[in-house]
Amino acid sequence: MTQRAVAAVILAAGMGTRMKSALPKVLHPVAGRPMINRIIDTLAPLAPERTVVVTAPDHDAVRAAVAPAKTAVQQPALGTAHAVLAAREHLEGFDGIILVMFGDTPLLTEETMRAMAGAMEGPADPAVAVLGFRPEDPAAYGRLVTSGDGALEAIVEFRDCDEAQRRIGFCNAGIMGLDGRVALALLDRIGNDNAKGEYYLTDIVALARAEGRACVTVEGDAEEVMGVDDRLRLAAAERVAQRRLRNDAMANGATLIDPETVHFCWDTRLGRDVTVEPHVVFGPGVTVGDDVHIKAFSHLEGADVHATAEIGPYARLRPGAEIQAAARIGNFVEVKKAVIEAGAKVNHLSYIGDARVGRQANVGAGTITCNYDGFDKHHTHIGAGAFIGSNSALVAPVRIGDGAIVGAGSTIAEDVADDDLAFTRAPQTAKSGWAAGFRAGRQDRKNKNAK
Amino acid sequence: MTQRAVAAVILAAGMGTRMKSALPKVLHPVAGRPMINRIIDTLAPLAPERTVVVTAPDHDAVRAAVAPAKTAVQQPALGTAHAVLAAREHLEGFDGIILVMFGDTPLLTEETMRAMAGAMEGPADPAVAVLGFRPEDPAAYGRLVTSGDGALEAIVEFRDCDEAQRRIGFCNAGIMGLDGRVALALLDRIGNDNAKGEYYLTDIVALARAEGRACVTVEGDAEEVMGVDDRLRLAAAERVAQRRLRNDAMANGATLIDPETVHFCWDTRLGRDVTVEPHVVFGPGVTVGDDVHIKAFSHLEGADVHATAEIGPYARLRPGAEIQAAARIGNFVEVKKAVIEAGAKVNHLSYIGDARVGRQANVGAGTITCNYDGFDKHHTHIGAGAFIGSNSALVAPVRIGDGAIVGAGSTIAEDVADDDLAFTRAPQTAKSGWAAGFRAGRQDRKNKNAK
Amino acid sequence: MTQRAVAAVILAAGMGTRMKSALPKVLHPVAGRPMINRIIDTLAPLAPERTVVVTAPDHDAVRAAVAPAKTAVQQPALGTAHAVLAAREHLEGFDGIILVMFGDTPLLTEETMRAMAGAMEGPADPAVAVLGFRPEDPAAYGRLVTSGDGALEAIVEFRDCDEAQRRIGFCNAGIMGLDGRVALALLDRIGNDNAKGEYYLTDIVALARAEGRACVTVEGDAEEVMGVDDRLRLAAAERVAQRRLRNDAMANGATLIDPETVHFCWDTRLGRDVTVEPHVVFGPGVTVGDDVHIKAFSHLEGADVHATAEIGPYARLRPGAEIQAAARIGNFVEVKKAVIEAGAKVNHLSYIGDARVGRQANVGAGTITCNYDGFDKHHTHIGAGAFIGSNSALVAPVRIGDGAIVGAGSTIAEDVADDDLAFTRAPQTAKSGWAAGFRAGRQDRKNKNAK
Repeated sequence: MTQRAVAAVILAAGMGTRMKSALPKVLHPVAGRPMINRIIDTLAPLAPERTVVVTAPDHDAVRAAVAPAKTAVQQPALGTAHAVLAAREHLEGFDGIILVMFGDTPLLTEETMRAMAGAMEGPADPAVAVLGFRPEDPAAYGRLVTSGDGALEAIVEFRDCDEAQRRIGFCNAGIMGLDGRVALALLDRIGNDNAKGEYYLTDIVALARAEGRACVTVEGDAEEVMGVDDRLRLAAAERVAQRRLRNDAMANGATLIDPETVHFCWDTRLGRDVTVEPHVVFGPGVTVGDDVHIKAFSHLEGADVHATAEIGPYARLRPGAEIQAAARIGNFVEVKKAVIEAGAKVNHLSYIGDARVGRQANVGAGTITCNYDGFDKHHTHIGAGAFIGSNSALVAPVRIGDGAIVGAGSTIAEDVADDDLAFTRAPQTAKSGWAAGFRAGRQDRKNKNAK
Repeated sequence: MTQRAVAAVILAAGMGTRMKSALPKVLHPVAGRPMINRIIDTLAPLAPERTVVVTAPDHDAVRAAVAPAKTAVQQPALGTAHAVLAAREHLEGFDGIILVMFGDTPLLTEETMRAMAGAMEGPADPAVAVLGFRPEDPAAYGRLVTSGDGALEAIVEFRDCDEAQRRIGFCNAGIMGLDGRVALALLDRIGNDNAKGEYYLTDIVALARAEGRACVTVEGDAEEVMGVDDRLRLAAAERVAQRRLRNDAMANGATLIDPETVHFCWDTRLGRDVTVEPHVVFGPGVTVGDDVHIKAFSHLEGADVHATAEIGPYARLRPGAEIQAAARIGNFVEVKKAVIEAGAKVNHLSYIGDARVGRQANVGAGTITCNYDGFDKHHTHIGAGAFIGSNSALVAPVRIGDGAIVGAGSTIAEDVADDDLAFTRAPQTAKSGWAAGFRAGRQDRKNKNAK
Repeated sequence: MTQRAVAAVILAAGMGTRMKSALPKVLHPVAGRPMINRIIDTLAPLAPERTVVVTAPDHDAVRAAVAPAKTAVQQPALGTAHAVLAAREHLEGFDGIILVMFGDTPLLTEETMRAMAGAMEGPADPAVAVLGFRPEDPAAYGRLVTSGDGALEAIVEFRDCDEAQRRIGFCNAGIMGLDGRVALALLDRIGNDNAKGEYYLTDIVALARAEGRACVTVEGDAEEVMGVDDRLRLAAAERVAQRRLRNDAMANGATLIDPETVHFCWDTRLGRDVTVEPHVVFGPGVTVGDDVHIKAFSHLEGADVHATAEIGPYARLRPGAEIQAAARIGNFVEVKKAVIEAGAKVNHLSYIGDARVGRQANVGAGTITCNYDGFDKHHTHIGAGAFIGSNSALVAPVRIGDGAIVGAGSTIAEDVADDDLAFTRAPQTAKSGWAAGFRAGRQDRKNKNAK
């Protein structure tokens, strides 16, 4: 942890026009989490004393998403230095380390931000630390010119680079640490005498050095500083985020048979010796215990799967699904807001919502809990060891007792006592030869129509 | 658009033996469209005056697929020049630009074919334009020998290349433009004095130059000239076609969370701010409006999804499905030839075929429209605001009135009036303690058998 | 085939700590087959006279998995030479070729092992053959130092390499052939005078050469010698195994529209002109005949699909499913231990288990065979040409006759004769205006609650 207090300023006022979206760019999610929240999460372990998100005026949704972080509005948008100054009221009097980040770099790591804060506390006592990276193709990035002793001498925009500077592979990622004791004064002196008439944060390096203050660099990897400008880059960022999550899951002892086909959320938790077959999607809020087998084509969100449960294929667990030890959820089964107790089985083509299925109960194929009457949701209780015959409808609120049996094809609207058999069934009627006659008639008609 | 008329000759007489298929090679689809039709589509914006597809004699299926394009039969197959001459009757008297293409290069772009036609109209007034490309590994491709002023001097087969020519990276893609005023005369002079005794189209360059006519080149990218010879190359072509479709969708403002797992057809249309979760397959004929969310594991073909609808996960929309604004199709639901009106919900485990579901209607889990009697399909109408209780069968033809309710587990074969409740249900019977007795008996038997 | 007998010693005593698994490392499957069994399968065509798997003492599960291969226990684990000597009792008196392999290299090919055996029979009559490979990054691998005539002079550990040796790209894969006539004597002379105090098999090269016996190398590709140490490498190995299986399937005439999304098992067999759509998973034991179309999101295991059948999307075929010619299994349908005869259709939302569905029968949407009574499984027979109305439950044991019709929504517990119509249905009841009243009441209550 740093000795000095940390403040975070996250610039998120960009319009994101190239996203072609009604949603502000920084709210587009990566691994199920809005980009702006990912940045805030990344900084959380540094325990920033204050966090300020600089937004566009009409981005109420961003302000709501980042609460309780403070927000400031930049209007109009006149460059990055201007954006930091929009947060002035939250920075005045703050003498710690100010970390300036962007809301659209969702892959930034905690390690790198720790290194940034650390660099600000280094022996050089720098006024500015700049995050650099080495892109495969440096293209038109600004170059970081460093001296032999590692000090940052200048940030040179690509168009202003001489031949030698263009050969520098170390580029400006835009992310900075600033010494709070001088930051506002320096920022105020940044001018806009340039082609676009904007105030550029990068100019702070020259100003600090002119005052005799040191500037330093920190190196991050090219991947983590990737900015998201359009949906292709969003997909590229998602790919990196997924690869990290997949590798973490495997490193922790889960088998992902085909990792590229397993999609995680930022908060998915998998135990040890979990096997995830190909083509599985985890939405937010899923926890999976040890020795769970998740078969192909399963979709889980907001679910708590206990150790040794077996899920899928084609299982859909929705929020509030709790699948206890050794329970089985099979194919084409949807479970919502329901506890499936230890050893219970719901193996085929069922909908279990707002329910509790007791230990070792067996719910037959095609069972539906009729939990909704068009206005309210009602609860279904299935007792321990109960057996629900296939193709039954359980009209909630209803209670099936422990050890009870429901006959196949029943519609159960009244409670069933423990150990009872209950069913609804009209007598089976047979009409001898009717089918043959029906077919003959239809065939006849078809023949006539064909004439 | 070119000044001169354009004719297209597409060579498609190859047997495609390495495909190991009963289907003619050029009918194998890429992004859901037969390769030969993709070529024809690519040329359509050039408005060719005539299009001739040269086929093998027994390939009636190819001739049917390309109609109304003209066809010619090459028999026997004696080389590419011989193949073009098989189209002689359609080319005689044509004095525009003849574009010669191959039926198995499904990735060719309109831009490149426009450039080919444009080159034929260039100041050199060439007799021949050849499409070249720069493969990563030039391997055994024929080399395009060009002069300083860009004129094509010769096509040299790899085996005839000298050391210097082998170092040329610019290779022959086989695709050509020919001046219709001289093409047939030149083609007729191509000989077959070579190892295989075949007539090679590439020989036309030397013949044209011998007559003092210019030859020129156009450069395409290596990817687009890829020919498909076997199923691995077919898969490689599919990958490129999919990448293009995915990138287009994203550029137009759709989010593909994991693009590599979303499979498009050539004619899929997605609106803006559409989100497509991982693992979604689009068959032919799908249109999706703005702000639609398509969840994982959905499969759509021939469906029209209006703006703001919500689809999946595990939704299957089949041809004739029209999902209107804010309607929801949920998991394990199949919709075929049915209109789901605005705000209606079919959320779980249902089959809705040959039907209309009215505005704001709610169709419960496990509902089946029984549309088929073994001979004919019949229609089901569900009124606006109706509520269909779970696990019901609606035996078509049948009409459920506006605002009507169907009780859970019913089989409805007669019309239900507006605002009525309708149901079929046998009384619930309980046999006290029967389940306990049944279990005891079974356990007893098991124990005896075990002895 | 080699002239001399072959014995295989497979070292599998490693703990595999980095797998973080309760399952012994070599039992983790690749393409559905435990790694150790893959190695044994790879050797089978060489018909080894004896196969010995060296295991850790507590790995009973490994010993069970490799039966009838012989096993030996290494305890404690004192290096690779020590591990081979653990198999001493099975090697004494054996004068053929001993192949020493590792249980965690699941990608080794038959071709390479044949080359190893062949090298042992070469003119040099070597005592040792070592498998080498050329990794992209030789990193810290041991180098194979060879003489001009291809003889192996030494294996030099990376830390002992001089500058020139470090530039050697040919590295030791660890896999060896040994001359059975001298192997044990040489192994017994290997010492443990090294940092770890272990007995290294690589030392055998120097010992053999000191006796004037030749050592030779065989080159394998880097991919096939990949060892699996953790779950990331397991996933990497799976990727290679899948690519091989996919390429084989395509080379044999199947179309995989998006190969990367199709997951095979080691024993999957596909016919010609089979089309597999994206997102299909094959479990063990699947055979698919010619001209079968397998649609997206299907999951097959232990199934026999005859030529011209149509499967999916979302079809789940479980062990014992036999789908005959031109039969159709549609979406959200599970078939287990059931024969679906030629031309029969089960198109939607059904569970067919322990059953036979006759030729041309049509099983409606939502049909469930109720095969389980909580204790035993029972059989359902559906006759040829029968028609099962939607949403029906067939309570096994039960027989539906040829040509019979079951009415929609029925629960059939008694046999139905040929050509009969059978149904269970309570009369349809209508309560006029009830739905309107219900809604008004509920709305009323909601309004009151809202106050």
